[in-house]
Amino acid sequence: MKTYLDCYPCFLRQALDAARLAGASDVQQKAILDSALELLCQVELSSTPPAIGGQIHRLVRQETGNHDPYHVVKQESTRQALRLYPRISALVDQSDNPLNTAVRLSIAGNIIDLGPDRKYDLWATVERVLTQPFAVDDRGALRAVLAQAGRVLYLADNAGETVFDRALIEVLNLPVFYAVKGDPVLNDATAPDALAAGLDQVAEIVDTGSDAPGTILECCSEAFRRLYTMADLVIAKGQANYETLSEAGSKVFFLLQVKCPVIARDVGVSLGSIVLKWGSSESENRLEGDE
Amino acid sequence: MKTYLDCYPCFLRQALDAARLAGASDVQQKAILDSALELLCQVELSSTPPAIGGQIHRLVRQETGNHDPYHVVKQESTRQALRLYPRISALVDQSDNPLNTAVRLSIAGNIIDLGPDRKYDLWATVERVLTQPFAVDDRGALRAVLAQAGRVLYLADNAGETVFDRALIEVLNLPVFYAVKGDPVLNDATAPDALAAGLDQVAEIVDTGSDAPGTILECCSEAFRRLYTMADLVIAKGQANYETLSEAGSKVFFLLQVKCPVIARDVGVSLGSIVLKWGSSESENRLEGDE
Repeated sequence: MKTYLDCYPCFLRQALDAARLAGASDVQQKAILDSALELLCQVELSSTPPAIGGQIHRLVRQETGNHDPYHVVKQESTRQALRLYPRISALVDQSDNPLNTAVRLSIAGNIIDLGPDRKYDLWATVERVLTQPFAVDDRGALRAVLAQAGRVLYLADNAGETVFDRALIEVLNLPVFYAVKGDPVLNDATAPDALAAGLDQVAEIVDTGSDAPGTILECCSEAFRRLYTMADLVIAKGQANYETLSEAGSKVFFLLQVKCPVIARDVGVSLGSIVLKWGSSESENRLEGDE
Repeated sequence: MKTYLDCYPCFLRQALDAARLAGASDVQQKAILDSALELLCQVELSSTPPAIGGQIHRLVRQETGNHDPYHVVKQESTRQALRLYPRISALVDQSDNPLNTAVRLSIAGNIIDLGPDRKYDLWATVERVLTQPFAVDDRGALRAVLAQAGRVLYLADNAGETVFDRALIEVLNLPVFYAVKGDPVLNDATAPDALAAGLDQVAEIVDTGSDAPGTILECCSEAFRRLYTMADLVIAKGQANYETLSEAGSKVFFLLQVKCPVIARDVGVSLGSIVLKWGSSESENRLEGDE
């Protein structure tokens, strides 16, 4: 997905949010904003928003010397989600359709996103997403591809959301590589965040080798790109993975909540929608869901 | 009031909103955004937000060749407010305290503001503001100064809001100069907008000689500055007049709704507050209201 003009104000807001979370002084905040403005003067609209966002957050880390501004927030998100884990597991166990319930829970967990907006009510979101109609519903295709798949690459999004991913991975019953960021950016999960959420118990934790939000393949490590190539199925969580892989084709399934008006327009759905979108062009003639 | 870093994302958003309203093509929108970024690289935080906002809106008008992007919107706002005028007048006529009711109505009309947000429900706002407690309440001081005043300068804000101002001017029973913008900016009232709202029936319509939002005295015409100096009392409507005149001293009274988090912080009140604030430092030990 290309960058829209409406992303520009949001990049500046994110720069300020991250700078403040990193403890930047007023002078540092101004320096970060000035650097962000210079950067935005030079970017190409053909870049994806996470490619530009990645540079903005790198600026913040460099200027403040804070390697991981969202560290404390991520820890708290993981702790909060882990407290809910028994209830999440019980919902899946008691479901007539565990895959469907686990898919919904994994999408519910995608509310833990500090890019677009920092306020949310986690359990209220779970209850909403358990019954909310899908705005794009490729669950039928996902089930079909899963039935044939040997190896799954699962692209993580945010710390805390990891716990909800764990519930989905448990029902997949397939070998899963769980890919987190190579270095901190926003509240995206890194390896320590995934470990704290217990993902090592259900998957092999790997990292993209990149500190950009989403998955910009050309910025990822060779080892990661090999895993990506070899995977039969890629589950891509969250907005940034959609923004960076929307053209990646038929082995990618996007699971997300739409929290940004620009992405809503790009996907062709309303703000607040839940989406399970197949990367295949056949998605337009999608298979029926099976609830 | 100085410019805060949080104003920067908002300047970009305003540039886009105005560009689209002016009918800018995608290429023009990008050019406007690039020029806005360059401008923001150079501005000083000691400037007031309207001084920068004025430059942003000038950019939009120059790039699009549209002298008044908000022309149609302003006409519709005025028509909508005029339809309510009989109800507004009746509220004042039937009030036990006409000045108080008219002050509240004038503040209610300040919701017609396309800078911070373009959505509002006009009559619901009237009903809310008629009973909402003031977050800053210098009505006692206003009444005291009015009792001594010979000549009032009333600084208008938005088209449509003009109709609500008319109701307040009618109860003042003093000679009033009603000052609008010298040239179009945002949905701020200009002389034709004030005429369409019937302000010539209750006041002498003058203009600031400037196309900046608010009242930047050094950018105003000499004729306007003379009026400002000679006035015994200045009623300054809306956020931009607060932003540009907050240091102007004891003859200015600010009447506004707080629709922007930066201004909320500067005034020391919550978002959504209604404010009648005296420019005097004595405002801190304010006189009692008289409802």
